[in-house]
Amino acid sequence: MKIFAYGIREDEEPSLKKWEENNPDVEVEYTKNTLTADSARLAEGADGVVTLQTSAYTREALEVLKKLGITKISIRNVGFDNFNFKDLNDLGFSLTNVPVYSPNAIAEHTVILMGRLLRRVPEFDQKMDNGDFTWSPTIGKEYREQTVGVVGTGHIGRVVIKILQGFGAKVVAYDVYHNQDIEKQGLYVDSLEELYKQSDIITLHVPLFDSNKHMINDQAIEQMKDGVYIINCARGELIDTNALIKGLDSGKIAGAGLDVLDNENSVFGKVWSSVENIPDEKIRNLAERINVIITPHSAFYTETAIHNMINTAFDSNKELIEGQQPSTLVDTKA
Amino acid sequence: MKIFAYGIREDEEPSLKKWEENNPDVEVEYTKNTLTADSARLAEGADGVVTLQTSAYTREALEVLKKLGITKISIRNVGFDNFNFKDLNDLGFSLTNVPVYSPNAIAEHTVILMGRLLRRVPEFDQKMDNGDFTWSPTIGKEYREQTVGVVGTGHIGRVVIKILQGFGAKVVAYDVYHNQDIEKQGLYVDSLEELYKQSDIITLHVPLFDSNKHMINDQAIEQMKDGVYIINCARGELIDTNALIKGLDSGKIAGAGLDVLDNENSVFGKVWSSVENIPDEKIRNLAERINVIITPHSAFYTETAIHNMINTAFDSNKELIEGQQPSTLVDTKA
Repeated sequence: MKIFAYGIREDEEPSLKKWEENNPDVEVEYTKNTLTADSARLAEGADGVVTLQTSAYTREALEVLKKLGITKISIRNVGFDNFNFKDLNDLGFSLTNVPVYSPNAIAEHTVILMGRLLRRVPEFDQKMDNGDFTWSPTIGKEYREQTVGVVGTGHIGRVVIKILQGFGAKVVAYDVYHNQDIEKQGLYVDSLEELYKQSDIITLHVPLFDSNKHMINDQAIEQMKDGVYIINCARGELIDTNALIKGLDSGKIAGAGLDVLDNENSVFGKVWSSVENIPDEKIRNLAERINVIITPHSAFYTETAIHNMINTAFDSNKELIEGQQPSTLVDTKA
Repeated sequence: MKIFAYGIREDEEPSLKKWEENNPDVEVEYTKNTLTADSARLAEGADGVVTLQTSAYTREALEVLKKLGITKISIRNVGFDNFNFKDLNDLGFSLTNVPVYSPNAIAEHTVILMGRLLRRVPEFDQKMDNGDFTWSPTIGKEYREQTVGVVGTGHIGRVVIKILQGFGAKVVAYDVYHNQDIEKQGLYVDSLEELYKQSDIITLHVPLFDSNKHMINDQAIEQMKDGVYIINCARGELIDTNALIKGLDSGKIAGAGLDVLDNENSVFGKVWSSVENIPDEKIRNLAERINVIITPHSAFYTETAIHNMINTAFDSNKELIEGQQPSTLVDTKA
């Protein structure tokens, strides 16, 4: 059995080697390149492909694979928006993804962002850069004194809650679907408005729907406490960046920690020579603020997550090749 | 009743105002200056003084206070090393301190330092400064995968343990005195050597004695895991800086988070125009490393801690003046 993998990065190689050691019956070959009509030919002789990319998977690429007798694709991430399901169905492809790789990676990043804001780390860093070794007047706040509003109590939100409780913070939560354990703890409030009203820090852990696009807008921010902190490690489009900037300008919002941004694809994943050269005016505005911390969609990026992404994707592809139905199978007919 | 306070900073004023509101029977006056033979005269008419400074309290200053009929001093911090007990006893002074103001402030700072190292935040910050919005290859580690060795299970060490457990980290602990709760949880190892051997991260939470000065030396570091992280928010003299630098040079130590440093008084609390101008060669060496995070003895510095320092010091001084024996009384006869 042979699997060919696309877009393999250096940091994935140790995990991939381990998987190969544990699966001596499978031959693995790979390239750093993404899957295109050209690179598809590299998979010749393979029984399935494993891939990861943000650019679109073209019909042409899929047709080349099909001609090589390959119809089993396993992606190493969650999102399959860059596939056209019609193409997959027309050509008879099976697709698997990695629905969960490490809620903790994102949850931990979320809580670290809060801490960096509460303890005014960017200001301390700036002082240090200037050889300023004084602590006053850069006074911090403690997690345990905060009420944190967690919007969304899925895998990630629940880990965030558990970590915050270790710090002794007060947690309030909101979700349309109530988790039994969070319910038992009495953490749910009845409305987002109530969560906004009570929270010193608000953190988002919901998927993006049409209905919650720009849920953090002028009106929502108005309902929040003065001096609120907002954290977003979920989806950039949940926040109306104009409203966020307005809130930061007025001081209503004390700071923000953002791993995702509306229109981030125009900026993230690229190297600009400096912050001033960022082509998106709003993102540049945020990036220049001392009380805003931006991370480039890196919350997920831990050794554990990468290990799980590799393992699940290759396991799934192997199962597909063996004629099994992996639990990670994507329903492309839906 | 009147209390005069020295060295009051701007960030202390809100807490001080609150204390005054809650104690309308006490007149409070204060200065930003420290307590010296000159400034001591400012306290004329007061029944006690509250003070905080790192410089020495001179016999001359105490003699002026004594002449003004003031023999009750309450410091707003823990350490009273800058008093000469003989002077206090000769002149009949009573002294109180603030033994505990916020273990959480220091514990939270400790855990944030760990997270900044695990997620390679200084490297991400540097990338951001250069307009680099890529995440690869700056891969992070998760708390939950770490074994953290906590040296010292007093107030602060125990809060650190609780927070780390919220993250799902494995904790091993060492202390000469065993805390019942930590004992029950089975966290203690029998020796420092065993703790060094097991730990991915080592954090110090012990007071400084002659016996543990430079406890983290070449020999201790040799017993540690390759790629260990070391955190010190306790006392700078616990670590032999030469050994730390050697360990960082060899890669044996992957990174360090240091809120305290041996010989920190030559550098901390001052403004150098840049890192290159730091007069202490070893501290400069550490400050220039991307995998070392230095904070200027600011772990304690939160609104909660300052509030507690003001409250406890003024409460204690009031009790002294009223002829009571505060629980914070320092035994100067010992």
